[in-house]
Amino acid sequence: MLAKVTDTAAGTAPSSATPSSPAQRVRSVTDDDRAHVFHSWSAQAQISPPEITWAEGSRFETADGTRYLDFSSQLVNVNIGYQHPKLVEAIQRQAGRLLTVSPAFANDMRSEAARLIAEVAPGDLDSVFFTNGGAEATENAMRMARLHTGRQKVLTTYRSYHGATAGAIAATGEPRRWPSEPSVPGIVHFWGPYLYRSAFHASTEDEERDRALQHLRDTIMVEGPQTIAAIMLESVVGTNGVLVPPPGYLAGVREICDEHGIVFIADEVMAGFGRCGEWFAIDRWEVTPDLICFAKGVNSGYVPLGGVVISRAIADTFADRPYPGGLTYSGHPLACASAVASIGIFREEGILEHVRGVEETVLRPGLEAIAARHPSVGEVRGVGFMYAVELVRSRVSREPLVPFNASGEAAAPMAEFAAECKRLGLWPFVHFNRTHVVPPCTTTADEMREGLEKLDAALEVTDRHTA
Amino acid sequence: MLAKVTDTAAGTAPSSATPSSPAQRVRSVTDDDRAHVFHSWSAQAQISPPEITWAEGSRFETADGTRYLDFSSQLVNVNIGYQHPKLVEAIQRQAGRLLTVSPAFANDMRSEAARLIAEVAPGDLDSVFFTNGGAEATENAMRMARLHTGRQKVLTTYRSYHGATAGAIAATGEPRRWPSEPSVPGIVHFWGPYLYRSAFHASTEDEERDRALQHLRDTIMVEGPQTIAAIMLESVVGTNGVLVPPPGYLAGVREICDEHGIVFIADEVMAGFGRCGEWFAIDRWEVTPDLICFAKGVNSGYVPLGGVVISRAIADTFADRPYPGGLTYSGHPLACASAVASIGIFREEGILEHVRGVEETVLRPGLEAIAARHPSVGEVRGVGFMYAVELVRSRVSREPLVPFNASGEAAAPMAEFAAECKRLGLWPFVHFNRTHVVPPCTTTADEMREGLEKLDAALEVTDRHTA
Ligand SMILES: Cc1ncc(COP(=O)(O)O)c(C=O)c1O
Ligand SMILES: Cc1ncc(COP(=O)(O)O)c(C=O)c1O
Repeated sequence: MLAKVTDTAAGTAPSSATPSSPAQRVRSVTDDDRAHVFHSWSAQAQISPPEITWAEGSRFETADGTRYLDFSSQLVNVNIGYQHPKLVEAIQRQAGRLLTVSPAFANDMRSEAARLIAEVAPGDLDSVFFTNGGAEATENAMRMARLHTGRQKVLTTYRSYHGATAGAIAATGEPRRWPSEPSVPGIVHFWGPYLYRSAFHASTEDEERDRALQHLRDTIMVEGPQTIAAIMLESVVGTNGVLVPPPGYLAGVREICDEHGIVFIADEVMAGFGRCGEWFAIDRWEVTPDLICFAKGVNSGYVPLGGVVISRAIADTFADRPYPGGLTYSGHPLACASAVASIGIFREEGILEHVRGVEETVLRPGLEAIAARHPSVGEVRGVGFMYAVELVRSRVSREPLVPFNASGEAAAPMAEFAAECKRLGLWPFVHFNRTHVVPPCTTTADEMREGLEKLDAALEVTDRHTA
Repeated sequence: MLAKVTDTAAGTAPSSATPSSPAQRVRSVTDDDRAHVFHSWSAQAQISPPEITWAEGSRFETADGTRYLDFSSQLVNVNIGYQHPKLVEAIQRQAGRLLTVSPAFANDMRSEAARLIAEVAPGDLDSVFFTNGGAEATENAMRMARLHTGRQKVLTTYRSYHGATAGAIAATGEPRRWPSEPSVPGIVHFWGPYLYRSAFHASTEDEERDRALQHLRDTIMVEGPQTIAAIMLESVVGTNGVLVPPPGYLAGVREICDEHGIVFIADEVMAGFGRCGEWFAIDRWEVTPDLICFAKGVNSGYVPLGGVVISRAIADTFADRPYPGGLTYSGHPLACASAVASIGIFREEGILEHVRGVEETVLRPGLEAIAARHPSVGEVRGVGFMYAVELVRSRVSREPLVPFNASGEAAAPMAEFAAECKRLGLWPFVHFNRTHVVPPCTTTADEMREGLEKLDAALEVTDRHTA
């Protein structure tokens, strides 16, 4: 109830029946944001969110008229770029046809989206359970694995993010989990491969792979294989560092899962649908998991959508036994129509090929040149349009430019870097001591060059913090 | 990967870049549904979901050409009716403007939706955390309460539904929880008021209220008030029976919460936004909770949206301390634009007043007449456009027409009833031994009469099962 606003609204009715006429509003978007919008992961009094007023392709504009080249794809979801005209049109068309249908019915767009996703998924992952986003996808994947195996434990890695509902945040292996503990029982965290900061004192990719697999085998041994329902991994770890698994690692995990009847869940919420130059990142290593979680890139977040692609064997578990999970908007027609259109556009426009081409010719060589030039760059790594630039105080000690989970003063060098990027017209993705290069998958070679130049310039700031 | 489909698709490319031309599809919507769509809460081999092909106002049509008057509003979410032209237009317009913006930014539609929701919310609940649906709303409300109080336990009622992610399903007080146990620790279930099947052997509403409050006080005493973060209640229990609290009950809960510093969470996912003839059902009793969970009716599910409305005191807890929760699509511009338009339409068209009027003149008297006529009707109860007809073997013994949580053969009388409704062109909402009358809030008096006539006729079927 907003007594003050209705009182001071100069005689206008409290209701704005004309939301399309921003000029008629008594208060600004920013005022209303600060007064009424409660933002994710934030101390509400310490933020001043810029207002986005326009976006197209690889760029967006804020209310002060500044236009940014986007190296973040919002939260790494706008894979198809902003306001893709064909995708906008498909959404408008479906809005005029049929917006909402409960999960108990069939619907053309729901069927078609499921068929297309099954078509691009590996192996016999032919069945799709739709959700609204990534957290609900990992929650349901874990539920399916538990009921399929009759076991309770789920193994996930440190340095992972799987969402923020109770089950998803328990599976998460980074600091965002801490305030929500204790949570769901039965989650066990282990260490994944990350050669640059090896948990296994390895010095080559082969060594890292072998030791990481040995560590996983040992963890399973001491946890008891017959107690473990699933291993859930980001195929390429996203927010926590763009950790690309060494060749053979995912195949090794597959083998271990097969040996013990453990379900292999690939969380492809961030890595899937073009981000890594493939429909699913795991295709890169020709490994077939039992369940794939997706969201974000499936429709670039134009309408909230996520889901789980399910193997025949797991789907069959629920052939005659009810699957005990659901949500009101499972298989939402508008969301499904946008996925159908998006997959069509990816094919027509050859977006996967585009990502691989620009990665090869511009992004990777560009980042390698940047790494050679800047003493603050410890490592660049990645695949497709998903790269990390890891920043250090010293290339010898590899001491992170800012400490793990730093905030406030301790994180100042990264904040300075982000501010410099923005000053230069580049919107960066920044996490801990890294910046990720995760632009829309439709970013052109020229735009990529432009962004890399700005990044190059901004890294002068971090260089000043090296020893 | 769909080897078979691509092989047999008579030379056509595997991708359908023209989803808008259903005629070009090789397989039917139903075939693809059965092959690729994994449905909520179902044994996949035992369902044959009808295809919805058209919907408008209070009616929808399935692929066989049958048109139904909808007494279910899908999953009690289509409050504004199907394909409301102004709401469709607002979605199309926003799709052309700006579809996706991350939670870290401000955006005009996000600000406006938050302001309007704060405006219709009671007390100082002025801040809105947006989610994609109901489960994420209850999950985040519980997280806020835990961090605000520094306590762990959450009290919820038996016969409640709060969603299906790990935290939400743990809070749920009905059989859908069972297969997901053990889940999040620290949930305690108690009994709420339900005079027709009183847990407290009460025989009047006043007695039921007093005893239910005494039971809650006793539960808090033995659980330890200083360990309890929140009491979460559906203001009017939805799926589990349309249990309308007796006058004074919610005020009593408010008092108990105040006494012990416990957060009062009202789950209005089903009861809010017109369903009970109010913006929020709890307004009916002039009680102000600390947190309100919403979804469904806020935009009739035209785009997935939910959220939590937050009191000043709880929002202030996160003024200088980061709120540790979030989701990629929090405050999605398209979803928010649809909420803005929907609230405007509710006001322009006087939908709350319409619900109260048709309830008073048609729905309530109609159901009372039906109750008088049919021996299988044990009780009718409800508020607004949210009524339950509770079916029994005998009005004297009150034995439910089918047992609690019955399925298969045991549930046959209810399945026969549902089939008869559909034969008559009425789509019913059926749960256990009840049918709920939960049509779109825009259902006209004439449509309501038509639906009640069909319901009346269909109840001949259940009468045959009475003693
Ligand atoms: C790998 C991964 N899994 C799950 C999620 C959660 O998705 P959502 O925010 O849509 O709930 C994310 C979000 O960033 C993610 O990156
Ligand atoms: C009272 C209540 N809370 C929460 C939910 C969960 O909402 P969703 O299905 O959008 O997750 C529902 C869904 O029916 C509900 O009725």
